[in-house]
Amino acid sequence: MALVVQKYGGSSVATAERIRRVAERIVETKKAGNDVVVVVSAMGDTTDELLDLAQQVCPVPPAREMDMLLTSGERISNALVAMAIHSLGAEARSFTGSQAGVITTGSHGNAKIIDVTPGRVRAALDEGSIVLVAGFQGVSQDSKDITTLGRGGSDTTAVALAAALDADVCEIYTDVDGVFTADPRIVKDAQRLDKVSFEEMLELAACGAKVLMLRCVEYARRYNVPVHVRSSYTTKPGTIVSGSMEDIPVEEALITGVAHDRGEAKVTVVGLPDTPGYAAKVFRAVADAEINIDMVLQNISKVETGKTDITFTLPMSDGPRAVELLTKQQDEIGFTQVLFDDHIGKVSLVGAGMKSHPGVTAKFCEALAAAGINIDLISTSEIRISVLVDDTELDDAVRALHAAFELGGEEEAVVHAGTGR
Amino acid sequence: MALVVQKYGGSSVATAERIRRVAERIVETKKAGNDVVVVVSAMGDTTDELLDLAQQVCPVPPAREMDMLLTSGERISNALVAMAIHSLGAEARSFTGSQAGVITTGSHGNAKIIDVTPGRVRAALDEGSIVLVAGFQGVSQDSKDITTLGRGGSDTTAVALAAALDADVCEIYTDVDGVFTADPRIVKDAQRLDKVSFEEMLELAACGAKVLMLRCVEYARRYNVPVHVRSSYTTKPGTIVSGSMEDIPVEEALITGVAHDRGEAKVTVVGLPDTPGYAAKVFRAVADAEINIDMVLQNISKVETGKTDITFTLPMSDGPRAVELLTKQQDEIGFTQVLFDDHIGKVSLVGAGMKSHPGVTAKFCEALAAAGINIDLISTSEIRISVLVDDTELDDAVRALHAAFELGGEEEAVVHAGTGR
Repeated sequence: MALVVQKYGGSSVATAERIRRVAERIVETKKAGNDVVVVVSAMGDTTDELLDLAQQVCPVPPAREMDMLLTSGERISNALVAMAIHSLGAEARSFTGSQAGVITTGSHGNAKIIDVTPGRVRAALDEGSIVLVAGFQGVSQDSKDITTLGRGGSDTTAVALAAALDADVCEIYTDVDGVFTADPRIVKDAQRLDKVSFEEMLELAACGAKVLMLRCVEYARRYNVPVHVRSSYTTKPGTIVSGSMEDIPVEEALITGVAHDRGEAKVTVVGLPDTPGYAAKVFRAVADAEINIDMVLQNISKVETGKTDITFTLPMSDGPRAVELLTKQQDEIGFTQVLFDDHIGKVSLVGAGMKSHPGVTAKFCEALAAAGINIDLISTSEIRISVLVDDTELDDAVRALHAAFELGGEEEAVVHAGTGR
Repeated sequence: MALVVQKYGGSSVATAERIRRVAERIVETKKAGNDVVVVVSAMGDTTDELLDLAQQVCPVPPAREMDMLLTSGERISNALVAMAIHSLGAEARSFTGSQAGVITTGSHGNAKIIDVTPGRVRAALDEGSIVLVAGFQGVSQDSKDITTLGRGGSDTTAVALAAALDADVCEIYTDVDGVFTADPRIVKDAQRLDKVSFEEMLELAACGAKVLMLRCVEYARRYNVPVHVRSSYTTKPGTIVSGSMEDIPVEEALITGVAHDRGEAKVTVVGLPDTPGYAAKVFRAVADAEINIDMVLQNISKVETGKTDITFTLPMSDGPRAVELLTKQQDEIGFTQVLFDDHIGKVSLVGAGMKSHPGVTAKFCEALAAAGINIDLISTSEIRISVLVDDTELDDAVRALHAAFELGGEEEAVVHAGTGR
């Protein structure tokens, strides 16, 4: 008997009607002879409504209480789906993240899963029940307080449960038909991928693809859980994320897709002494503030001044804070000025085939040049090339690369309305 | 340092504005030098809205899932009140019933508290925090599932916590100014009582007074927790429920108040053989269906037939079921017919003074007779006289007794709008 873990996002359960439809789908899966575990996000706008209520009573709500408040949303949706399943004649039981054994760090609002001990889930499955587990939450190993997992938390819950229960597959139901060669809202002939390796999906997610959050893909890869990303609106197969790129035969290794990211900003520290230790001071200052740096470029120093510039990218929301703390330490570190640019976009080409096919970087740069797009920074890995461009040119850059590497097809992609969570 | 437990009902926290006002009241109590534990019901209509959502996905929702669903309401309100307290500069932490150590039976929707182990609450208090505890819920000792406590559950939670923490007082904040000599909506000159003994409050609650549920008062009496029933709209003192009537000096023991109950119905089993064992069969049949019987009357048997009638009262909602099962066993038990009357009302006079003052029963019956009200059944205890009357005459009966025993005063009672939960 196979064990299937399914995850449904907030728009899939936004109304009583949709809840009943999701219940039908779940019961079908059970009737096909599977054990079924389902992770459900909060209904539609519930989380936003709760956040709004919180704001009305407290301008800066304490993180612990925010987690107590927000986790009610998932509790409600999971209990309702369990009830809907019951009305279709099947057994179902809902559990909170804590009851399902999701153990996390104590970092409220952004906790990481440490372990999953799904004893109660397994027992309920063995009794023949369909099991619902509230996503996006767990319990802190130290304080025993309830925690939430941050963006994409429900997807991560689903994959973590699939790993702990040794599931055959983890199905992530969403608003799009799967993982595409590029964002179908930007590239009209973007194609749905049948299959993507873990490493390629990691790169796509890290470079801006929103269909699966990075943490979820990391978890899936570490525990080798196949993830099937598919639409909750149809029964068509989606994209299977599984397997290592090492196992792809060389001749089948391809360029997989183009990702883009509007969420980064660029900081340049100008006139830093080009001497060992100074770059480290800049990065240490930023790291101590728990700001993650993405791409880095150190310019060639000017011989006459002995000074150099360091440029790096970071999440746009962290930009002002990074500029502020660097400015505070200007004399201490010793540089001329800090520049900030939040009008950048990042475009990335991802593909296992890059490793074995020379000339990809050249073709990449030629495609952008032909489209008249200026490249600001370049950063590469074994299977990825990323560049910074002006954000007004980002969409054109995506389209240029998608066409140059012939990723399009005849069928135009269908985009469903929804929040895609 | 005193320990105060407070309970606020749903209408007290129905909006963000009211939540902030409740938070102010709580912080004042803390600033006065007390340790404070607060039990909060779900916001306003939340419970009804959740029930409605449940109905939309499932006509007969499983009880376990209903408890998972409904308990979200209290979780939300408690987290919001904790946040509001935080915005006033004080520390606050919210806990679910389970986290606060409220252990219950497994009876979903109507669980009874078995024990309260408030270790985490005590630790948080010792750290200087105000503690919020979600009312109306606990965790089943056997299954570890979440349970709800039935009507008045939040009041019971508050009293149970007060007992377990050895609190100095349990303040129940509600829509009315306290416990009255009669329902102020029926009797215009009903007076607020300053003090009521546990036993008298038990009788009043058992006989229909809705201000405190019977189970809550039983718990308070067993653990000797003083309960202060007061209005959440003013700072006036309310009614202190405490002490045993045994401790009231004879000369101070009085008639305390009049309670009424519209929620009962009357069943008469006609033509039952007047022989040992037959009455027992009737009561056993009803008891096996878990129906509670209140008042009982066995008529004097008719010598010529050797048969008698038995009449008893029960909750109106159980009436049809009792009639059905007795009818099914008609031949087996051997009676002529079953009669059902759901147009009855019960009016009761309560007072410790009854024990030491002869003539109360006579005065009681004379007052009703003078008002032209017919008495159907009489039932008494040491400190209570209850009679059944026609429900159309119930309000008049209440007023007649209240006047005859001079319970009124000059000040007219103020009745606030609200659900009184």
